[in-house]
Amino acid sequence: MDGLYMRWCVELAHKAAGHTSPNPMVGCVIVRDGRVVSEGFHPKAGRPHADVFALRDAGDLAENATAYVSLEPCNHYGRTPPCTVAFINTKVKDVVVGMTDPNPIVAFKGIERLKSAGIDVRLCAEEEASCRKLNEAYIHRMLTGKAFVTFRTTLSMNGIVVNKSGSTSDQPGGYYSQLLKEYDGVIVSSNFAKTNTLPISHEAGAKQPLYIIMAQGEDSQLNIPFIKEGSAPEAVVLTDSPISVEPAGIEVLVLDRMNLESILQLLAQRGLCNVLVDFREAGGDISSLLNNFQEAKLLQKVLVELLPIWTVSQGPCDLAFGGNQSFPLNDMEHKEVNGCVLLEGYV
Amino acid sequence: MDGLYMRWCVELAHKAAGHTSPNPMVGCVIVRDGRVVSEGFHPKAGRPHADVFALRDAGDLAENATAYVSLEPCNHYGRTPPCTVAFINTKVKDVVVGMTDPNPIVAFKGIERLKSAGIDVRLCAEEEASCRKLNEAYIHRMLTGKAFVTFRTTLSMNGIVVNKSGSTSDQPGGYYSQLLKEYDGVIVSSNFAKTNTLPISHEAGAKQPLYIIMAQGEDSQLNIPFIKEGSAPEAVVLTDSPISVEPAGIEVLVLDRMNLESILQLLAQRGLCNVLVDFREAGGDISSLLNNFQEAKLLQKVLVELLPIWTVSQGPCDLAFGGNQSFPLNDMEHKEVNGCVLLEGYV
Repeated sequence: MDGLYMRWCVELAHKAAGHTSPNPMVGCVIVRDGRVVSEGFHPKAGRPHADVFALRDAGDLAENATAYVSLEPCNHYGRTPPCTVAFINTKVKDVVVGMTDPNPIVAFKGIERLKSAGIDVRLCAEEEASCRKLNEAYIHRMLTGKAFVTFRTTLSMNGIVVNKSGSTSDQPGGYYSQLLKEYDGVIVSSNFAKTNTLPISHEAGAKQPLYIIMAQGEDSQLNIPFIKEGSAPEAVVLTDSPISVEPAGIEVLVLDRMNLESILQLLAQRGLCNVLVDFREAGGDISSLLNNFQEAKLLQKVLVELLPIWTVSQGPCDLAFGGNQSFPLNDMEHKEVNGCVLLEGYV
Repeated sequence: MDGLYMRWCVELAHKAAGHTSPNPMVGCVIVRDGRVVSEGFHPKAGRPHADVFALRDAGDLAENATAYVSLEPCNHYGRTPPCTVAFINTKVKDVVVGMTDPNPIVAFKGIERLKSAGIDVRLCAEEEASCRKLNEAYIHRMLTGKAFVTFRTTLSMNGIVVNKSGSTSDQPGGYYSQLLKEYDGVIVSSNFAKTNTLPISHEAGAKQPLYIIMAQGEDSQLNIPFIKEGSAPEAVVLTDSPISVEPAGIEVLVLDRMNLESILQLLAQRGLCNVLVDFREAGGDISSLLNNFQEAKLLQKVLVELLPIWTVSQGPCDLAFGGNQSFPLNDMEHKEVNGCVLLEGYV
């Protein structure tokens, strides 16, 4: 039954997708005498952790219960008190953990603290992969100090880039609208931003991503007409020489060099775990940057949405970034989304 | 339970894939008192039909039994006696039919003959679609007088045509090897045939497809070095002006015009139900013909194998045949085959 409860934790955790960075998503379920007595998830950074909600709801029923938590409980004082103390105080009998926390100030210390208090702790091996996938961006940022990068594009069945998000993808409940909800940032070329509305997630309660507008080589004046100061979506312009940006009030960062590695470090330092690079929004204009993504091993994940059409070529059909080398994609998955086939693979 | 037995009939019928043309694939199961007492399938044209095998095996148990057959039984004397007579003589109680036969000399006549003999006949509506898909090429040939055309290609995840069949696809048990087993013919450009071994199915007992070598505009002499007279695979060269073909003995047909519609009629008349057009073997050289495929509505099905790689461009990346119009693909399916994602759609 461990697997069943742990999958439940992952489902619960995922409810807060897009809201928790720089923290991980975490879910917790308290089980006593074969019954789920309470559940909880971490809603956003600065709010209590998943287990705090679950233990609070369980009340006296937590005593002698088994707690399932998708990530190792913390043992340090951050913005909230350590979770280990809550488990110990409520006298749970054992704790099943989905994965250890790669955060060096947590790693194994949480588990050791629980064990030293006489609580039985075990890893749920069968769901470790799903717990890691849930927090792949958090783990990547923690281990590398850089934001996790996903490249996304839409192809027709004959491999032609379709220069739109897909018929229903942009709409509420559509795939792209859901995807935007789960990303902390979206990389956009200045050419796109000059003439297009920046896409937003239409999902209920969605936190909009930060728009990272790449403006290398731009003239001294960049006008982004479809964004308004102070309103969502939030944006930052990255440039290699001082420029003035309209409307006023948009943050502009002048970098020594438009080096992607340092940009991804900068974004991680600002608390972003993952960023999305969509071919339509970041595409042709920054193909030289995309080249570097792969060369510098800065690209982690590829999402391809295949539309059920056969098209004539409408522009660049060559998504062959990555320098002179082909590279394999691992752990490929495929599923149907809104009548399209969605393919997902890891670099 | 009708659906279960009918799916069994479809499975049985499919065992003879590639062997039955110009006949359909048919499977039959005899059920009495809730038990399967016998089964059969049509192994190849000229051999007995599926129900003959099943009724023979059932013996006396066929009396008062229910017969499931994936296609309406025939009621005419062809190379074998009518199946309806066998059902009547063995005194089956009822017959469940997967679909009616589009062949005008069969259509509804088989069902009427059974009914007039007092046998209860019903259609298995829930499996009609799978019965029709099993014999999609047979039905198409019967209704249009032309061979059913499937276009197949292999793309990388970034939409680049990969000019090989894929790592394991050509091997025994591989996807392409299995596909070749199920096709009556394969369209090959003379440019491909001049320098490449014609691909064959490595599946046990496979009947190799007929190779239809398109040699329009060829010089007076065509040398196909990797094919030997009298041995498999069998080939026919289609040309618009007289040419001599080496090795001697290969059939050469000089057509007034390399018109695809009439070529597909010719192939249907020779008993071929379906032909495969692989981009690698028929590709760039006959792109003008491929154009016509769609313009003339001669293309029925598209198979795209997506390899789990991101590649650099190695040549034409533009599979935009079909003239100036995009077209939708219907009834899309996707599944994993040999580590690739296989997409299938209908024009």
